[in-house]
Amino acid sequence: MTETTTRSDLSSTYDAARAYELDRAHVFHSWSAQAEISPMVITRAEGSHVWDADDRRYLDFSSQLVFTNLGHQHPRIVAAIQEQAAHLCTVAPAVANGARSEAARLIASHTPGDLDHVFFTNGGADANEHAVRMARLHTGRHKVLTTYRSYHGGTHLAVNMTGDPRRWASDHGSAGTVHFFGPFLYRSAFHARTEAEECERALEHLDQVVSLEGPGTIAAIVLEAIPGTAGIMIPPPGYLAGVREICDRHGIVLVADEVMSGFGRAGRWFAVEHGGIVPDLITFAKGVNSGYVPLGGVAISDEIHATFAHRTYPGGLTYSGHPLACAAAVATIRTMEDEDVVGRAERLGEDVIGPGLRALAEKHERIGEVRGTGAFWALELVSDRSTREPLAPYGGSSPEMGAIVKGCQERGMLPFANFNRIHVVPPLTTTDDEVREGLAILDAALTAAAG
Amino acid sequence: MTETTTRSDLSSTYDAARAYELDRAHVFHSWSAQAEISPMVITRAEGSHVWDADDRRYLDFSSQLVFTNLGHQHPRIVAAIQEQAAHLCTVAPAVANGARSEAARLIASHTPGDLDHVFFTNGGADANEHAVRMARLHTGRHKVLTTYRSYHGGTHLAVNMTGDPRRWASDHGSAGTVHFFGPFLYRSAFHARTEAEECERALEHLDQVVSLEGPGTIAAIVLEAIPGTAGIMIPPPGYLAGVREICDRHGIVLVADEVMSGFGRAGRWFAVEHGGIVPDLITFAKGVNSGYVPLGGVAISDEIHATFAHRTYPGGLTYSGHPLACAAAVATIRTMEDEDVVGRAERLGEDVIGPGLRALAEKHERIGEVRGTGAFWALELVSDRSTREPLAPYGGSSPEMGAIVKGCQERGMLPFANFNRIHVVPPLTTTDDEVREGLAILDAALTAAAG
Ligand SMILES: Cc1ncc(COP(=O)(O)O)c(C=O)c1O
Ligand SMILES: Cc1ncc(COP(=O)(O)O)c(C=O)c1O
Repeated sequence: MTETTTRSDLSSTYDAARAYELDRAHVFHSWSAQAEISPMVITRAEGSHVWDADDRRYLDFSSQLVFTNLGHQHPRIVAAIQEQAAHLCTVAPAVANGARSEAARLIASHTPGDLDHVFFTNGGADANEHAVRMARLHTGRHKVLTTYRSYHGGTHLAVNMTGDPRRWASDHGSAGTVHFFGPFLYRSAFHARTEAEECERALEHLDQVVSLEGPGTIAAIVLEAIPGTAGIMIPPPGYLAGVREICDRHGIVLVADEVMSGFGRAGRWFAVEHGGIVPDLITFAKGVNSGYVPLGGVAISDEIHATFAHRTYPGGLTYSGHPLACAAAVATIRTMEDEDVVGRAERLGEDVIGPGLRALAEKHERIGEVRGTGAFWALELVSDRSTREPLAPYGGSSPEMGAIVKGCQERGMLPFANFNRIHVVPPLTTTDDEVREGLAILDAALTAAAG
Repeated sequence: MTETTTRSDLSSTYDAARAYELDRAHVFHSWSAQAEISPMVITRAEGSHVWDADDRRYLDFSSQLVFTNLGHQHPRIVAAIQEQAAHLCTVAPAVANGARSEAARLIASHTPGDLDHVFFTNGGADANEHAVRMARLHTGRHKVLTTYRSYHGGTHLAVNMTGDPRRWASDHGSAGTVHFFGPFLYRSAFHARTEAEECERALEHLDQVVSLEGPGTIAAIVLEAIPGTAGIMIPPPGYLAGVREICDRHGIVLVADEVMSGFGRAGRWFAVEHGGIVPDLITFAKGVNSGYVPLGGVAISDEIHATFAHRTYPGGLTYSGHPLACAAAVATIRTMEDEDVVGRAERLGEDVIGPGLRALAEKHERIGEVRGTGAFWALELVSDRSTREPLAPYGGSSPEMGAIVKGCQERGMLPFANFNRIHVVPPLTTTDDEVREGLAILDAALTAAAG
């Protein structure tokens, strides 16, 4: 046998130098100026670690983009992908398929209430687009209310729903979206001093926006159950129930975007459980299969499902319910069940991340607030604790923030950074010791950057 | 070892009855009224065949949704998916990765002209959404011209670009799209009698629409290089070159949607080659990896790439350049190169499908027109050849069409049907004999339905 016949189609892809060179020549990167980036090559990964071109190991405190909830290369998910690949990689959405059926059953078994029907998409953006279409056709109304400080995806409608600077460049005509303020006591839009006051005022504000926009014009209120990239602002007790009540009062569909917060990230299967409510639609992606194969979707209530029982749902996509993606979801969810990964995430937050971050806040003046739950935490960094002046402007970066991120990386940890925040969002399966190791790196990086 | 420990996470998914039952309980299907469907369970598949719950075999003349260009379970693609799964399932878009880099290089090596940069998406809809965003930011203009009789995807902007009835339900505000007529001699919008006349008049029409909409307001003209689902209308010689010229004259970005027509389907790597033009952007999906893992993307010219060299491209998605999807693309494209699959598709059209369908047209009064190239063919079915009255209304179905489709299925062949058309779009790797077998079934089904 000659060397050529034993080489796989992927052999050449394992050369890190070549990977970098071809990346710069041919790969167009998201959210970037193409000539101003020099991407780190990730050559391998396992559990909570990744390795770069020089075989340096990094602890991944970002879960990539907050999606590798079971860490890298989990053997059960890898095995399921390999088995499904050998069996049946792909079929069209119109047929039925065992992997898709079982994934839908498992998802439905963990969604709250009667959200027992699943429309599969490829990711989070299209899940939100389809959820809004369902809400519009269900209500016969057009407008969609979403919050400032939110992210819902990069396609036209999803980016218009988004309440962060990523919307601005695509913001010609609203696609029917209207933005309101959610609760965020640390930077209250309502001059509130307590969580209870913030909650009450945020609900009063939403009630006013609904009245002034016209309740009969509003198809849906869409919100992240816990806003993620925008800062992991846990809704105060009563807020989600208040939104549910406003929706009920006006026949508005409540959509919880759980793309980031779902599947254990917040120490619950779905973060809405913290608020004790059942939305009409839940959108998901990321954690559903730890991102091993692109997958997203919408979990649908009986009532909205009934709307499309004898009326065609006018939407779809070629890869809806892709068997390989669904097989990865089956293995992910079964693993989460068998190993109580959700309970583990809750405990990780309560026993390790929360206390660890609060200890850092004792020490570092720049930490203005520590927020979070489960494996879903944010540090709000400020140049002045009394004025709460952010360490980087809204929508931007700063040398100080750059130094902290670089300090973490140099010490072997990948943080998730956004504007003036560092998020601590490791895989839910990260060990306590690994988390402590990462927090020690963050501590050192904060000290070094403070100079 | 007990039975439980040897069972994989997927064991229960192989039971066809259970797959059906769970599908009806939990899977929400695209483009359907949920209570009015009873989906066929596909239990296994190989090459050009699939098997149902009763282990009946069907020849797949639809390539599912025109995407399994290399057929089902191609061993090289399966091996690449399994190898990449064992190596590294997923990383974030911001890093570099060997599988992604190599997929981008291979794609760029087959795109025409200087379309050497690849932005990866999950499918066709988001590829079109991002292409339009690039065109809008590159030109500083907003309007997008697309054709009637087209499909561009199910997300908000893509469905607004779409020129078929699937747009109607989501058609509130145009998202900046304007529709014009493309060439289609058989049902000419221009009262033309020859292909040359149709071409000239279609270009004159587009020129008028551009003038009347305002050239300085138009960011892009987006068209399927060969309209697919809408009817496989091969553009007459000179049409694409004429559109290219109009775009050049006004600084309009030309986007070719090759989601269905690309990667060999039309007997060329990209269907624009038939027209001898280089668009500014090409969107792709489906055939790029035969749909084995969700993947799409935009191939970008040097000029548009340069626009985003020092200016952030404001768009992205979590799974951009997913390693598993890219590994499948690497194996697919290498296989296509090694086995001259594109040449084979061309010959299949010239020697087998084209002659076979023309022979059917000699025999069956209901065949109004035979159109196509490569493995990309349509039969226009009519109730009356002289009036060209379609066998089903635009946007609808009819008992006659239903009988033909059912007749094919009963005889063991899955056709692709749309309104009054049957498309013959088998995997490019289907053998001549299999194609002849499928055409014989179509012949019998047409005869039986005419009964
Ligand atoms: C809350 C939320 N919604 C939607 C999305 C969009 O998902 P995707 O990138 O898969 O389109 C994201 C992605 O980060 C998200 O965090
Ligand atoms: C020409 C064309 N463009 C875009 C799409 C949308 O692709 P997807 O279904 O992957 O979103 C399709 C799907 O059939 C298509 O045929």
